[in-house]
Amino acid sequence: MDLNALSAPQVVRQASRLQQLQGPTAGFANGYVQANLAVLPKAMAADFFQFCSANPKPCPLLHHSASPVFELAGQRIDIRTDLPRYKKFIDGHCVSTPTDLTADWRDDMVSFLLGCSFSFEEALLDAGLEIRHISERCNVPMYNTNLPLTPVGPFGGTMVVSMRPMTPAAAIRAIQVCSRFPAVHGAPVHFGDPAAIGINDLSKPDYGDAVSIAAGEVPVFWACGVTPQVAIAAAKPDLAFSHSPGCMLVTDLRNAELAVF
Amino acid sequence: MDLNALSAPQVVRQASRLQQLQGPTAGFANGYVQANLAVLPKAMAADFFQFCSANPKPCPLLHHSASPVFELAGQRIDIRTDLPRYKKFIDGHCVSTPTDLTADWRDDMVSFLLGCSFSFEEALLDAGLEIRHISERCNVPMYNTNLPLTPVGPFGGTMVVSMRPMTPAAAIRAIQVCSRFPAVHGAPVHFGDPAAIGINDLSKPDYGDAVSIAAGEVPVFWACGVTPQVAIAAAKPDLAFSHSPGCMLVTDLRNAELAVF
Repeated sequence: MDLNALSAPQVVRQASRLQQLQGPTAGFANGYVQANLAVLPKAMAADFFQFCSANPKPCPLLHHSASPVFELAGQRIDIRTDLPRYKKFIDGHCVSTPTDLTADWRDDMVSFLLGCSFSFEEALLDAGLEIRHISERCNVPMYNTNLPLTPVGPFGGTMVVSMRPMTPAAAIRAIQVCSRFPAVHGAPVHFGDPAAIGINDLSKPDYGDAVSIAAGEVPVFWACGVTPQVAIAAAKPDLAFSHSPGCMLVTDLRNAELAVF
Repeated sequence: MDLNALSAPQVVRQASRLQQLQGPTAGFANGYVQANLAVLPKAMAADFFQFCSANPKPCPLLHHSASPVFELAGQRIDIRTDLPRYKKFIDGHCVSTPTDLTADWRDDMVSFLLGCSFSFEEALLDAGLEIRHISERCNVPMYNTNLPLTPVGPFGGTMVVSMRPMTPAAAIRAIQVCSRFPAVHGAPVHFGDPAAIGINDLSKPDYGDAVSIAAGEVPVFWACGVTPQVAIAAAKPDLAFSHSPGCMLVTDLRNAELAVF
């Protein structure tokens, strides 16, 4: 199939459902919100809901549903089939990366959709700012930090951040742009000295790829959607699912709808 | 007179008019906009108006008037008498610091009111942020930079900035808060490395007083209202006036009215 034709969210989800698309969704359906997915047993769902509320920057909750089929932005979503690829966890360990969850689904599973950096990156690009990992065609570098999360029940730990190098003037503009989008991580949480938040070596990200940092640029750090995945892995639910990295749920919500001003 | 009673803008202006108040207005009429003043001959006014429009961060124009008496926020202002103290310039040189401009006034003079950092500092304090020079009870440190202004007619040069040290997290919050107030210098123009904008030694400000910078803090730089004064001095009008440093026009505009969101 012609992947360039995947400009409509419904078409991306249909291609995922038919397993014609089994890989990353970056660059598809520009203008529309792509969401991180976390699926947990109902016994843990109330704690996870509260955990997201207490840690809105790394875990910005867009939607949750106790049914695998639900309506979002006027469209029917089947969370078991509408993403290109998933991860399946047993006791916190990833055991497979299926393209369909129907066979593995359990009636007590609750789905959580969380905001994703794709939305604010689109706003940054629209504002004329360069995003280094996009220019260098690699994954955004992500790091474990010593920034504590507010723990709730079995969920806790420290924040994972993503990093984008910028000049100070570009960073100031990026802070303004991202402040409009609290539902997708919002403003950065730190800039400058990596050691101040417990990062020892920017050239060795814990997730993703290292990017170049030019003279006169500072690293700018955003709360990252990998944080809830780390918190879930630590909580060791007997069964859990997430999206596979980069293989997001493409929704019919527009990024512009998430702007608070 | 009891200076603590100067909570109403009209009372501050009356005390100035009666020459009971001849010094700085900082801390008076909390919640109300205090403005920088520049007064130029009409022959230069069109260029200065355009210069402010082209350089809105250092020269945020709030109001201008070809008459010394005008209405602002429903109140009658006589710009010749309603500030505590002025500076008088001949050919760009300060020749005196009168408390009344009536005797020196010329019919062709045009007044410009420019936004002042007092307004955004109030918003920063309201947001729970510390402002170092207020904590240390001194003037804000200000520096000449190599940041070029957009020149118009005889007006040009480089930007003057004010500096407030903050942790990165506080700086991010300050950028958000100040972005709401473009009419009073708005968001910072730089943070971090002073040399990147042509500042060699933070401990030696070109205007105001040095402040302490703690470990883990970065200097954050805002466009400063001293910039238009430097531009005017360089333009060498045969006659000009400004407020004396810290001796502002206290208006009946509320700071909150300047917020754009």
